[in-house]
Parts: sequence; C-alpha cells; structure tokens
Amino acid sequence: MVGAVIVKDNQVLASGYHHRYGDVHAERDAITKLTPEQLFNSTLYVTLEPCNHTGKQPPCSDLIIASKIKRVVISQIDPHSLVTGKGIKKLKAHNISVTTGVLAQEAKKLNQHYAYFYEHNLPYVTLKQALSLDHKCSYPNKRVQITGNAASQKVHQERADYQAIMVGSSTALIDNPTLLTSIKQDHPPIRLVLDRRGRLLNQQLTLFSDNRAPTWIFTQNPELAKTSYPLHVKVFLLDQGTLTEVLQILAQNQVQSVYVEGGPTLMKSFVEEKLAQELITYFSPTFLGSNALDGFEITENLKLIQPNYQVLDKDIRISGRIDYV
Amino acid sequence: MVGAVIVKDNQVLASGYHHRYGDVHAERDAITKLTPEQLFNSTLYVTLEPCNHTGKQPPCSDLIIASKIKRVVISQIDPHSLVTGKGIKKLKAHNISVTTGVLAQEAKKLNQHYAYFYEHNLPYVTLKQALSLDHKCSYPNKRVQITGNAASQKVHQERADYQAIMVGSSTALIDNPTLLTSIKQDHPPIRLVLDRRGRLLNQQLTLFSDNRAPTWIFTQNPELAKTSYPLHVKVFLLDQGTLTEVLQILAQNQVQSVYVEGGPTLMKSFVEEKLAQELITYFSPTFLGSNALDGFEITENLKLIQPNYQVLDKDIRISGRIDYV
Repeated sequence: MVGAVIVKDNQVLASGYHHRYGDVHAERDAITKLTPEQLFNSTLYVTLEPCNHTGKQPPCSDLIIASKIKRVVISQIDPHSLVTGKGIKKLKAHNISVTTGVLAQEAKKLNQHYAYFYEHNLPYVTLKQALSLDHKCSYPNKRVQITGNAASQKVHQERADYQAIMVGSSTALIDNPTLLTSIKQDHPPIRLVLDRRGRLLNQQLTLFSDNRAPTWIFTQNPELAKTSYPLHVKVFLLDQGTLTEVLQILAQNQVQSVYVEGGPTLMKSFVEEKLAQELITYFSPTFLGSNALDGFEITENLKLIQPNYQVLDKDIRISGRIDYV
Repeated sequence: MVGAVIVKDNQVLASGYHHRYGDVHAERDAITKLTPEQLFNSTLYVTLEPCNHTGKQPPCSDLIIASKIKRVVISQIDPHSLVTGKGIKKLKAHNISVTTGVLAQEAKKLNQHYAYFYEHNLPYVTLKQALSLDHKCSYPNKRVQITGNAASQKVHQERADYQAIMVGSSTALIDNPTLLTSIKQDHPPIRLVLDRRGRLLNQQLTLFSDNRAPTWIFTQNPELAKTSYPLHVKVFLLDQGTLTEVLQILAQNQVQSVYVEGGPTLMKSFVEEKLAQELITYFSPTFLGSNALDGFEITENLKLIQPNYQVLDKDIRISGRIDYV
C-alpha cells in the first residue's frame, strides 16, 4: 500500500496509489495524470521511497527525473534491500531535493508485513485463535465451531491479508479445513501444514483434493516427501524440523506473511521461540467446560501492545502486537 | 428505581421518581407537584405497582384515591409478597381503572435484583472475575493487579449497585482488600467473607479494622464465632456450610444482591450449584503464563445471554446473564 500526492503552489494537483500487486506504482499513477507544465517544479509526496530498479514496473526514479519534479518528500525508506536508499541517491544525483522520515512510523504501519519481512528476512507471523470464556479451543478429536457467523466471516476476510495460512497436522486431520478466503484473489494464500511426523501420509484431505489454492506440507517424514500429489501440492522435507527452518524456507520462497490458525501446540511453539509478531483472539461468551481442550498456554509473561477490540455479534475480536519484553 | 408520569388530555402534567432508599415513592413525587384540579380525572403511569402498606412511607394507593385520579397504568406488578396485587385491588375497589403489563419486561430490568429476590427468596448473585488472555486470575499467594485503572474504577462503581460484596477466605487473606465503593453511600455494601474452616481466626485484616462498611463472616469454626470483634463485624456460624445456607441467611437479613469477587473456587461453586445469575469478566490483553493460577473452571457447558462488551482503556468488560440450560 503506497500513496503519492503532487503539490505545486500549495495546491494538490494529483494523487495516486498502488492499486494492486504488479500494477503501476503510486508515483506513476499520480504523475501520468498531469501535463509536463504542471509537473515542472512541483513537489512529490510519497509514503515509500521511489524504486530505482526494474521489477514488474520500470523504475520510478527515472520518471520523476524526466518529469522535472524539483522536490520529493518520502515517509519511509524502502526496507527492501534491492531498493534501500538507491532511489534517493539517484534523485539527489539529479539535483532533486529529498526529504525523508515525514510520518515514517505511520507509513510503516501501512505495510507492516513487507517492512518486517525485509528487516528480518523472515515472514511476519500472526497467530489466530478462537476461544471460549474458559480458554478452551475445541473438544478432543471433534470439530467445534466456537464463534458465530460474523466472526467466521471476519476470519475468511483477514486470511486474504496474508500470503500463507498455516495449521498443524492435528488441525488438518480433525477439522479437514479448506483454508480459503472469502475474497476472489489472483494469488490466494498458500495453505501450509506443519506435519513433522508425516501423519498426513495416505490421508484423504480437502487440502489435497481442492486445487483452488496451493498446499505446502513441511515434514521430516521421507515417505510423505516421496508421495505423488496433484500439482498444487508441494512437500518440503525438513532437515532440523524447527519453526525457524520452516520460516526460512518460506522467506526464500518470498512468503512475507503467515496467518497461523492453530492448534494450540503450534501456537505455543511460535510464541516460545518468539517467532510470532501478532495475536488475534476471537472470544465467544460461552464456557466449553473442563472436558474441552485448553487454548495455548505459555510459560512467559507476555503483553499485547495497543490491543484493538471489535465486537462481532456475540463474539469479540482482540488483536495486538506481541510484546516479548 | 421507579418512575411515574401523570397525563391529562394527552398532556404530561408531571413526572416523578423514587430518588433513593427511604425517600418518597415515585407516585407521591409526581402527585405532590399538581393541584387537585389538575389531578382530577387524570391518568397515572407508573413502572411498579403502587404500594398499599406502610413501610418507610405511607401507602401510595390511598394518595392516588384521594387525588381522584381516574386511571392507573402499571408496568410491573410488585414481586414483593407484601405488596403483590394488593395495591391494584385497593385501586379497583375505589372504581379506578387499572391497566397492567405495559412494558413489563423493560420495567423489570430496572430492578432485576429486587425482582429476583422476591421471586426466588434468594439474593441476585453476580460473579466478577479479572482474567488475563490465558485465563489466569493471579499468582499463588501473591496479589496481582491484572487490569488497568479504568477497569478498577468501574469495579469500584459497580460494587455500589449491590447490597453485599463476597470473597472467599483466600482472597481475604492474600489480597487483604478493603472492598469499598468509590461512591459515598449511606448504606455501603456489606463485606462478606465465606470462611468455612475459620482461616481468618486471629488474622489482622483491613475488613476487621476498617469500619467504613459492615463485615460479615460465615464460618463453621466455633472459635471464630466466639471471637470478639469491633461492632461492624458479625460472625455467622453455619450449620451445613453450603452456599444455599449462606444465601438463605442473607435473604433473611434482607440482602437482595451479592457481588462475588472471587476467588475461582468460590465462583466455581456458585456456577455448579446454579446460584449465580450474572457473570462479569474483565479481560486484560496480557498473559500471566503457566505459573499463574487458573480462573474458575467448570464442568458444564454454559453460555452468556446477550453479552455486553465495554472497552476500558486496554481492558475489556464482558457481562451477561448466565444460561444454565
């Protein structure tokens, strides 16, 4: 999410934004709305450093220089190592005045997955759980729908904000989920299953039969890795079998964000290894009772930073960044 | 909470309400604002059946008859056995037209503690807990403040809505609480401690030394019952030691409502014996970790009816009637 505004004589002449992945950048979207006379000596405000390399689009730096814009105000320097500072350097070399860091934190929040990914070389991980008031997440070996329709719809929507959705093997086997979003997407999130032991071997699951999104399995079981699956299914044979190894493989495959939907054991590991950045809890005002399974439990004392609350019918959604201090 | 309105020729001539315990009733508050000419042939709307007995105030039925009001519309028939139907009967005997049941449910909600008390001959019980996101309520043997200031202030306010506040002996010993409200009251809630074994024997507690509200101890320990305490402290020696026995003693002493502030064992007993009507949970977006004590856990599958959510700084308050079905 990037936005740009072109100003001259204290008047906003044009604005533009990055409409979607692969589309023209915000700067080009704004610049192409104006004539050369309007652009001459104008100031460009942009939330992210203009690119200086050819990706899906030609470099914005060249277009800015050709437009005879005299000043560029940038919120956030691009964390992408291919880009960092290079756009600014090029602009300055062509005598364009550059100001950086204006509303930088706000701009960073627009693309926190992207920023985190390039700063840490690991995907941004959000844990999502649905709990009863007594901190139960399900019954043993039985699928249970804890929250109501409004919460389920919200989950289907927010899956679309991530590049991948992860579950553990128990969730895959007991729930047999589709893990699809409710939004039509050219690139739906990849469905990830962490299955070290290979419990999914010879199982008939929707994740294998439904090809509406890719399915990636991470295992240490060589038999599972050798199994022949439909084209949308890919099996990664792990070496150490750690979460870090899984996340590194995902990063190498350009997966910038992961939405982890359980179960509790998987989520506990993410928190204990400090590999999760955000927690979303859906609470339902029910008690499942002491025969039900506990939600994830950790040994450390943790906090959520600036939690956000949203009421969804009878349920509530609590989200916040995890503070590991 | 009772309100009254006097109407004639489709015009509201006066309204009145019961300002506080012991004060004039709503009907009298409204009637005394008008002249005999205004009252003649008027209609009185009142949320609760007019009384026909002398309590802190003379009976309203006599005043209505003397005022030559021609019709009385009543929302809720008084559940108080001394009053039920008697006011209506008296009015009818004097040829006053009486309509009942208009917005009866809404009126009942105004005084749900009162209504429950007279319908069941037991106090209305609300359980209140403060929990972390991982369903922990405290550390062992150590006081912990889970929620923030806004939630604490809300608790101090809502204590004033009850006639008594109850804690278990562990909470009394570990927290050494004052259990006072933040509102100046002529009749502050009675502070109740359920202490079957008599663990409070020979303990120096604020509940004993601070006489700003009465303290009542319920015990099966005769030694505790024999102890000499300041005048504001009263010790009840229990026979069976059940919660029902405690609530029956409270009902005999005209305590209509109890706010139970823990600990988890006491709250669990209330729910398992189906003696609690309402649950208020304050959630804080923190994790206390697995060394902390669990919030109350029950075996049954329970729901809250029409839960209400309120955000208080970083915390959230969830309240609702308990559905035991």
